[in-house]
Amino acid sequence: MAKALDYESLNENVKKTAYAVRGELYLRASELQKEGKKIIFTNVGNPHALGQKPLTFPRQVVALCQAPFLLDDPNVGLLFPADAIARAKHYLQLTSGGLGAYSDSRGIPGVRKEVAEFIERRDGYPTDPELIFLTDGASKGVMQMLNAIIRNENDGILVPVPQYPLYSAAITLYGGSLVPYYLEEEANWSLDFNNIRQSIASARSKGITVRAMVIINPGNPTGQCLSEANIRELLRFCFLENLVLLADEVYQQNIYQDERPFISARKILFDMGPPLNKEVQLVSFHTVSKGYWGECGQRGGYFEMTNLSPKTVDEIYKVASISLSPNVPGQIFMGLMVNPPKPGDISYFKFEQESKAIMESLRKRAHIMTDGFNSCRNVVCNFTEGAMYSFPQIRLPARAIEAAKSAGKAPDVLYCLKLLEATGISTVPGSGFGQKEGVFHLRTTILPAEEDMPAIMESFKKFNDAFMEEYEDYRGYSRM
Amino acid sequence: MAKALDYESLNENVKKTAYAVRGELYLRASELQKEGKKIIFTNVGNPHALGQKPLTFPRQVVALCQAPFLLDDPNVGLLFPADAIARAKHYLQLTSGGLGAYSDSRGIPGVRKEVAEFIERRDGYPTDPELIFLTDGASKGVMQMLNAIIRNENDGILVPVPQYPLYSAAITLYGGSLVPYYLEEEANWSLDFNNIRQSIASARSKGITVRAMVIINPGNPTGQCLSEANIRELLRFCFLENLVLLADEVYQQNIYQDERPFISARKILFDMGPPLNKEVQLVSFHTVSKGYWGECGQRGGYFEMTNLSPKTVDEIYKVASISLSPNVPGQIFMGLMVNPPKPGDISYFKFEQESKAIMESLRKRAHIMTDGFNSCRNVVCNFTEGAMYSFPQIRLPARAIEAAKSAGKAPDVLYCLKLLEATGISTVPGSGFGQKEGVFHLRTTILPAEEDMPAIMESFKKFNDAFMEEYEDYRGYSRM
Repeated sequence: MAKALDYESLNENVKKTAYAVRGELYLRASELQKEGKKIIFTNVGNPHALGQKPLTFPRQVVALCQAPFLLDDPNVGLLFPADAIARAKHYLQLTSGGLGAYSDSRGIPGVRKEVAEFIERRDGYPTDPELIFLTDGASKGVMQMLNAIIRNENDGILVPVPQYPLYSAAITLYGGSLVPYYLEEEANWSLDFNNIRQSIASARSKGITVRAMVIINPGNPTGQCLSEANIRELLRFCFLENLVLLADEVYQQNIYQDERPFISARKILFDMGPPLNKEVQLVSFHTVSKGYWGECGQRGGYFEMTNLSPKTVDEIYKVASISLSPNVPGQIFMGLMVNPPKPGDISYFKFEQESKAIMESLRKRAHIMTDGFNSCRNVVCNFTEGAMYSFPQIRLPARAIEAAKSAGKAPDVLYCLKLLEATGISTVPGSGFGQKEGVFHLRTTILPAEEDMPAIMESFKKFNDAFMEEYEDYRGYSRM
Repeated sequence: MAKALDYESLNENVKKTAYAVRGELYLRASELQKEGKKIIFTNVGNPHALGQKPLTFPRQVVALCQAPFLLDDPNVGLLFPADAIARAKHYLQLTSGGLGAYSDSRGIPGVRKEVAEFIERRDGYPTDPELIFLTDGASKGVMQMLNAIIRNENDGILVPVPQYPLYSAAITLYGGSLVPYYLEEEANWSLDFNNIRQSIASARSKGITVRAMVIINPGNPTGQCLSEANIRELLRFCFLENLVLLADEVYQQNIYQDERPFISARKILFDMGPPLNKEVQLVSFHTVSKGYWGECGQRGGYFEMTNLSPKTVDEIYKVASISLSPNVPGQIFMGLMVNPPKPGDISYFKFEQESKAIMESLRKRAHIMTDGFNSCRNVVCNFTEGAMYSFPQIRLPARAIEAAKSAGKAPDVLYCLKLLEATGISTVPGSGFGQKEGVFHLRTTILPAEEDMPAIMESFKKFNDAFMEEYEDYRGYSRM
């Protein structure tokens, strides 16, 4: 008889769950790295792993919070500026027992207040710290929310395609149904409501109750910024269709053009006034892992809830309390992110200098990468307006598709594996995020160091163009 | 129509989930605190919140890892000892990008190797770092495992009563069935296999497949250390009944007597030899939150898997990868916990002094508390051999039980609420952990400061004895 932890008898939802960002390509890349090959990991948005330096001020503050005995040391001023010392004291006072004590399961009240103030400054509308929960990174918050919403396989969640596979993975794990809607690649990955209405109708015809809709803005893996008009239409749609809006806004600081700034779904919702602002249920997610912070390993995040009843908030609180509290250092990072040094503070200039350098470099890298992809044979790519990714379409020749078929692999997986073997560039095939039938992509982050970028794009171009040369039928007879 | 996040339409498993440690009593205590009343929070094992100071060496190391730029500062030696500096460099080398980078979803390979070495030293049998996953505290690991095991409401998990409510909460959340087995209070909360066999038989008669068994050793909330003989019988039982053993061993460093040291289930399993050592599936959980560390807020933990197939381990890995990685500072704490300063290291003496002082004080407090409870009218209490809790039985008079009934509360909830209002001592009623019908307890941690302990116990005794005086029928006619 199979034992409970034998593969055969595991929870089927666990087995069905797929998570491509650390899937076949990542595992092969790890193997090659063990064998001594130099790998450029562009599969995960993990800036520090690719050499981005942490911002100094927040690290000083958290280091002092970890070692509060330094605050009494007469030499502390030799290593730490006075505003970092003051800020560490501030956060230690907000905890009840320092970083080693569990906080309230929703996070430290004083930090949630700082988040609320940040949201009010950003949107022009106040919020309540009681509606903000701190989490171990944004992913954990998304999982908590999906777990609360999904009752069974007849509950559907609208998810963009392409999507960040956290959503498909969590929906499978919790036994719900993913209802895909395609983003319009030709219209810069915007939302197309005719298409979304068709998705909903098709799901309903199968007996699925569509309960929530996910947007990722700026987009992952697609890099677009949604326009204000598009988000207005989205909110009207959620209102009419009675959908909770899950707004993944973790890349809100990562904007690389001026024409389409980030505007939060919440601000637009409140701008629209009644009845929408009283009716549409909205949960927005944020993190310290992205922006110019890139503090992925610290696992700090929050979600903010709009138009949820106190009884629901209590239920979310109860479930959060099972694992006691999010990690406290990550909470302090969140406090620092929403409340950075201000003009006049000793550390302000350095902090601004560091963050601007990171943002300007990311902006340059977004351009180098998009231009690089667009210079390649059979590759087209929308400009990375925001987030940290480039998602070029690779127009694979028919013979490459056949070759993949014989190898028992998806065509874009074959392409990405060959790219990895040839160049060490570790990407994620588009099929891991979803794409239209017969259309192929890959996702890469824009995070390799700026100075390495030209060589990486050259190496990519060399591989790609040779690949196309090999598989394209230049005599044209297998073109259909 | 109810919206997806209206209370009425939430996932029923979420609503059914109960978590008493932060339940009614905790919420009332928080209210009273807001009103200015002095509250002694003994509801959660959260040592730093009650004044326990963090160990200096690990905090120095993690502070340096957070602020790696200090390592190049000529003044660093004024604030940090050389071995902390060396250790910080060691851990930074094990990461790929410092604390700000996501690690492998199983945790940093080098730290998992240190955990493996610790387990080998502890048990005398080697293990494989690939079978050790680091987690955001032990609770997250327990939840991952239960999620992998539970397929539907016909899957049963044997859980001790009284239990730590993480188990009941997670089993409800994942839609499984809790199969209770009673610990023998009169035999110092040991496992009684006649009783457990009855529990299994009764569950099976209801169509439940019993798939796993939880033990908590040392016990929470019960404070016992299981004997070697008891664990041997347990392992034979798991073998015969084809049960995965989930061994919650987070209190393995918290031992307050010499007669019954902690022995890991894994060591005994390997001592027993074939066929058990090749057959019994065992997952053991550990944490940096307990021991003399008490670093709850850092959320560091691990689980180690024995006799699980590589295919199962891959599935667990895949699910862990959805939320990318456990927090990295917590992983460093785990490395430090399993690899503390050694004789000859600069920080060894101080580290030993600090940890011994904490352990000796906990031992004294365990005695003060047990003796205190046993001196109270109608209160009996097993000695806290290990862990961080005291779980006295409160023999409530019939009139108190009737009063609770009229108030619509469980009798022990009424008692604990009155205790809270009268003394500020915030405990958790036994009903939150489970207890036999008609028998009542409360759980308190042994964590209030040693110097406060006599006054707390005196205040408890005063309340309890007055309560008994009020409700006991001294004329005896309602005694049955």
